[in-house]
Amino acid sequence: MIEIRQLFDPETSTYTYLLWDPSTREAALVDPVREHVERDLKLVSELELQLAFVLETHVHADHVTSAGMLADRTGATTVASALGAPCASRHLADGESVQLGSNSIRAIATPGHTRDSLSYYVDGHLLTGDALLIRGTGRTDFQSGDAGQLYDAITEKLFTYPDTTKVWPGHDYRGQSSSTVGEEKRHNPRLAGKTRDEFIEILNGLALAPPKQIQQAVPANLVCGRETQSLTA
Amino acid sequence: MIEIRQLFDPETSTYTYLLWDPSTREAALVDPVREHVERDLKLVSELELQLAFVLETHVHADHVTSAGMLADRTGATTVASALGAPCASRHLADGESVQLGSNSIRAIATPGHTRDSLSYYVDGHLLTGDALLIRGTGRTDFQSGDAGQLYDAITEKLFTYPDTTKVWPGHDYRGQSSSTVGEEKRHNPRLAGKTRDEFIEILNGLALAPPKQIQQAVPANLVCGRETQSLTA
Repeated sequence: MIEIRQLFDPETSTYTYLLWDPSTREAALVDPVREHVERDLKLVSELELQLAFVLETHVHADHVTSAGMLADRTGATTVASALGAPCASRHLADGESVQLGSNSIRAIATPGHTRDSLSYYVDGHLLTGDALLIRGTGRTDFQSGDAGQLYDAITEKLFTYPDTTKVWPGHDYRGQSSSTVGEEKRHNPRLAGKTRDEFIEILNGLALAPPKQIQQAVPANLVCGRETQSLTA
Repeated sequence: MIEIRQLFDPETSTYTYLLWDPSTREAALVDPVREHVERDLKLVSELELQLAFVLETHVHADHVTSAGMLADRTGATTVASALGAPCASRHLADGESVQLGSNSIRAIATPGHTRDSLSYYVDGHLLTGDALLIRGTGRTDFQSGDAGQLYDAITEKLFTYPDTTKVWPGHDYRGQSSSTVGEEKRHNPRLAGKTRDEFIEILNGLALAPPKQIQQAVPANLVCGRETQSLTA
């Protein structure tokens, strides 16, 4: 049994997730944002939780993580993909997991948005990072992104979970909070009824502006946000 | 059994809720926002739901409702407080309810932010409108607001629900999505350990600017947003 609380950064439309086991009170934060470190630590404290893990879905280009600060202040273990930020204390390969109380949080390699993108599965919930978004997907035009890889990861991995599995994305820009695997199979305009080639054509044709913070965010996230901490201190 | 999906309007930080009975597929929208009528109708359709009710927690001063448009396009029944918008098809007094499939949605009069403020209770969930917010409350300085009434409504009505009851507010400005009765009892800075007089003093000392849209929103909401519909058509 797991509890999930969704948190939001309006500046970058990033979702952070607080997960906890209600029996043991062990908690994990997924994709926490630097600007909200005090809000997030206060919530952990008010809920009388012990922060055991800080999990990253990938090296973000649009915001700086608070993983390093959280680890330094609470003793939590930072977790990332084996292909992700070298600063993490623990690196997970596809299928490996961490134990949060009675819950196993399983890492699923879902590359394509970035090479190191992980989704996490726990107790009927999929935290999909920037791989699968609500009625959308992550972009694939920088940081070793690959539209074909993303299509394969979503259709061959995420879409094999039951239709009722809850989907909690890393971002949303239209005021949507969650979805399900069944909904995305049927109604995601980039995926429903689309071939792999059509998906690649859609993604390669997006012509999006680069994320505003990419030059600062990527290097900062490779060191778990700790450089930024000392620079701004 | 009820399903809840939270939706957000970033412009006014308003939460809309889609509730449905997973067996009968009957649905209700709570506090829908005019600008998102297409998003919300699309979601209702994708989830294969039938919109039975549009519920308002009160006459809003910060955004215009889509209740009238939704009713006109789907046949849903608009519902408001007996002291609320006269345009609603059905008016609920304290303790009255509407039936959504196997679920009873009960209106709880929680005046103080406005005279007509309702909260709704269904299946372990409290939708608190602008009465109780996460670690905050609605303001009480316009539209017949009354800080003493709000204190009584929260402490004598909402806080009598079990501590585990989920709290879903009408707004949040700090990236928080939900709370529980227990959390708000213990950690709401305006309420935890505060007397009625202290609460009144806090609320009366807020000195907030008036909502930007108040001159347009209140008259529009008294006619379920329908005037606006024809004006902007």
